Amino acid sequence: MITFETAPDRYQHWKLSFDGPVATLSMDVREDAGLSADYKLKLNSYDLGVDIELADAVQRIRFEHPEVRAVIVTSLKERIFCAGANIMMLRGSSHGAKVNFCKFTNETRLAIEDASANSGIKFLAALNGICAGGGYELALACDELLLVDDGNSAVSLPEAPLLGVLPGTGGLTRVVDKRRVRRDLADFFSTLVEGVKGKRAVEWGLVDAIHPTSRFRDAVQARARELAAASDRPAGGPGITLNPLNPTVTDGEITYSAVSLTFHRDKRTADLTIQAPSGSQPSTPDEILKAGDQFWPLRAFRELDDALLRLRVNEPQIGTLVIRTEGDRDAVLAMDRTLAEHQSHWLVREIVHFMKRTLKRLDLTSRSFFAFIEPGSAFAGSLFELALAADRSYMFHDDQEENVVALSAMNGGLLPMSNGLSRLQTRFLGDEGKVRELLAHDGPFNAGDAEEAGLVTFAPDEIDWDDEVRLAVEARAAFSPDAMTGLEANLRFAGPETMETKIFGRLTAWQNWIFQRPNAVGEKGALKVYGQQGRPEFDWNRT
Amino acid sequence: MITFETAPDRYQHWKLSFDGPVATLSMDVREDAGLSADYKLKLNSYDLGVDIELADAVQRIRFEHPEVRAVIVTSLKERIFCAGANIMMLRGSSHGAKVNFCKFTNETRLAIEDASANSGIKFLAALNGICAGGGYELALACDELLLVDDGNSAVSLPEAPLLGVLPGTGGLTRVVDKRRVRRDLADFFSTLVEGVKGKRAVEWGLVDAIHPTSRFRDAVQARARELAAASDRPAGGPGITLNPLNPTVTDGEITYSAVSLTFHRDKRTADLTIQAPSGSQPSTPDEILKAGDQFWPLRAFRELDDALLRLRVNEPQIGTLVIRTEGDRDAVLAMDRTLAEHQSHWLVREIVHFMKRTLKRLDLTSRSFFAFIEPGSAFAGSLFELALAADRSYMFHDDQEENVVALSAMNGGLLPMSNGLSRLQTRFLGDEGKVRELLAHDGPFNAGDAEEAGLVTFAPDEIDWDDEVRLAVEARAAFSPDAMTGLEANLRFAGPETMETKIFGRLTAWQNWIFQRPNAVGEKGALKVYGQQGRPEFDWNRT
Repeated sequence: MITFETAPDRYQHWKLSFDGPVATLSMDVREDAGLSADYKLKLNSYDLGVDIELADAVQRIRFEHPEVRAVIVTSLKERIFCAGANIMMLRGSSHGAKVNFCKFTNETRLAIEDASANSGIKFLAALNGICAGGGYELALACDELLLVDDGNSAVSLPEAPLLGVLPGTGGLTRVVDKRRVRRDLADFFSTLVEGVKGKRAVEWGLVDAIHPTSRFRDAVQARARELAAASDRPAGGPGITLNPLNPTVTDGEITYSAVSLTFHRDKRTADLTIQAPSGSQPSTPDEILKAGDQFWPLRAFRELDDALLRLRVNEPQIGTLVIRTEGDRDAVLAMDRTLAEHQSHWLVREIVHFMKRTLKRLDLTSRSFFAFIEPGSAFAGSLFELALAADRSYMFHDDQEENVVALSAMNGGLLPMSNGLSRLQTRFLGDEGKVRELLAHDGPFNAGDAEEAGLVTFAPDEIDWDDEVRLAVEARAAFSPDAMTGLEANLRFAGPETMETKIFGRLTAWQNWIFQRPNAVGEKGALKVYGQQGRPEFDWNRT
Repeated sequence: MITFETAPDRYQHWKLSFDGPVATLSMDVREDAGLSADYKLKLNSYDLGVDIELADAVQRIRFEHPEVRAVIVTSLKERIFCAGANIMMLRGSSHGAKVNFCKFTNETRLAIEDASANSGIKFLAALNGICAGGGYELALACDELLLVDDGNSAVSLPEAPLLGVLPGTGGLTRVVDKRRVRRDLADFFSTLVEGVKGKRAVEWGLVDAIHPTSRFRDAVQARARELAAASDRPAGGPGITLNPLNPTVTDGEITYSAVSLTFHRDKRTADLTIQAPSGSQPSTPDEILKAGDQFWPLRAFRELDDALLRLRVNEPQIGTLVIRTEGDRDAVLAMDRTLAEHQSHWLVREIVHFMKRTLKRLDLTSRSFFAFIEPGSAFAGSLFELALAADRSYMFHDDQEENVVALSAMNGGLLPMSNGLSRLQTRFLGDEGKVRELLAHDGPFNAGDAEEAGLVTFAPDEIDWDDEVRLAVEARAAFSPDAMTGLEANLRFAGPETMETKIFGRLTAWQNWIFQRPNAVGEKGALKVYGQQGRPEFDWNRT
């Protein structure tokens, strides 16, 4: 079982150090500390375990170190920045494990860009040596790339020519869409095993600057200070501490303070339940700072995030999830008012962006989600986003009209999807009037009104409820898992495309295709044969 | 060997009739006239042969019938509109054949939308009976959908629940992005084998209107007249005739009047050469009408289009193409001036949009294209689009500076890619100043200037040329075909996404993935087992 929680004092592969407004995140991968003993993590190559630490470090810089305004991403290995994802690890991984690995590493790189775009933390990739494949893709997620000019160090995307697969962490998309490298140069570059170095790398836009070895360290430090000075991060310290979540894990259930995930493996389903806050809650920045990671939105969404990650990696056969909420709907709405009111405070901002990233994680989880809105539920405001994120929602239509849902300012654009739109905007694509009208609606919606307004999919009454929701889940869980993954990937992201949706929609889909083709993973496929005797053998048919 | 030319008097599956401004295109598929005898085309299901006729019909309406302003798409079968792609055909097809089939059918549906958007020909789907899967996807490509309300006729996308694959012809994208059906309703609809009929189909936005059987025919006719009246198509007749291309086909070569395609099967490469026009050319609409399909731009691009289609379907192992042009560069530029000057004339407009569609066909062809710009070439204006469409271009740097390329108004937005941008805009993404500057450049660019301006990838001189281009082609032809397909699909379409790029980038990639998964095509996969004894057996892992 893979877990996703870690902390700097437990890192095996990264060193995190601080010097005023500049943090340095140095990769120093321990060869013998991979998640599996089947491979050695040579040359700063990485597996999921290395990336879990990276994700944790970026997260902690945001919450625990508000004084940090620039991060240097570099390596402690001589003449090697990072060799990319470990090939032996990929070779030994199942198709599903490869796909999940790429998804998490993509999310981690997008989290770096999110910190830059929304938290004013600028990232500087200090490429002190060879920077290949996933190593270059990590650098591409940074705001600027400095490459040492030592006659040897190059950036490269050798996956296609060397391994017969694509760079799987957004490299192709970022080269042409983010860095705007000309497509023909990108084509040449992406088929060049040895990569591009020196002046040519700058001219083609692959890196921002080069510096000779003797001046590299100083140039990096100077540029990092400049980036820090230009940052608009609003706060100095102190930050808050992200403590361990300490869930109770049994064979059938993962239980956190506000989230529980219960598996029904015989049915290939699970119940995901989120508890609304109860009692008096912090309502000012000072109170929120004091509550720290126990402040409900942060606590509940950290737990939800962890539950989703464990589900993805450890429970591949659980294909259908029922999302429920429980508790005090008004407390959620009060919390949402606090978040919206104080959204410019650095910590509140971090919390809201973290909620956003967690909901994106849900959107990108290749499992079917049905929201069940039952009496006693708390689908209001930010928790109603869970119903909007679900593939469908079923709302119990009670005679008393006590089962209700409600919107808040948090549904109005503070928690955008990967496509840049709110879930309401995506749901009512192109009908901004409808979205405004719903957000302006005074008070909650009962089941009839919610169905009429299009906020829920179906609203069966007491007579129909049990059979309808049971049959819906049973039917979903009986469909081809691949077809459901493809269906959801296409229906969840209507509207505009962004670099983010391109990475997950286009690049990932092609990579998934290639990842199961004999030309990559067959006995004589390029990924299988790499590093061994002999050359790959290809089926030459172009598809 | 599959060929793509046909004509109404040879149609086996469609009837095309005309009544003033309204044409009627009626599907009446001959069960025993499939491309292969291995399956029967029951219930108006289709194979590639049926779709080739559809593509031809839409094309001929544009060129041969400028008086047509609305097209009714319907069926001559009782209570059946169309059952979609033939399942037995899909079951018996190789992975590559399935992918190519979907690509062509997608292009045909996009050509319908192109005719509506750019030629003022409105399409009305008259759904006189069951409309399932690809049948509904064909209807979705039309501007409006009328469904008969007979208590039985429904629209449906049963691919996922029934066959474990996706609707492969843009259905999911068009439901949420074009028709803006709510994503949760789309999710429900796309998992419902029996589909949705009657009032609910209208309420959910799946069709535009329903009419009882007794009034259906009149309602369709009336609506078609309204659509025709609202059309802005500029011209009445007469049109021009699209005569057969009559290429000379040998084992190693396909030779047309202006295009030749020469195969080097031992190297898995081919040469694609286009001849510029020579001699005096029509320069007024009257002269162009008189020249008809012999007018060089129409003739040459029809030949190019046919060559690309034959290549795709009949030569799967030819992975790398070298594009050359030959002849009178100035004649191309003169032709471009004529096209740009008269672009509002209906026939010139049709020709320009056809050139655009042909170049899109090239962009979407999963083969590597290298343009070789050699002395005597004619890479100017609309022919220079071939170099811009190529993955790379190599320009011979001659001492005399006689080898040149040139731009024209045709590079300035008249031939947009699927992403809605010109190839120059995509090449210099976000740098509109650079694009304007290049378009304003007076005269041709020699090799040094073209390389400096970023119009070509490399400009080797005489000493390097032979080795450099030979090695480039050899290296390309030795890479994994799948990796090259994925690489090109990601690098060719930087910039904004459109419904079109979503269909080819996102939907198609996921479908390709699903199309080779055992859950679909394994011995017990849903596509294999459908219609036979027993149920599919799935690997339940979610990926």
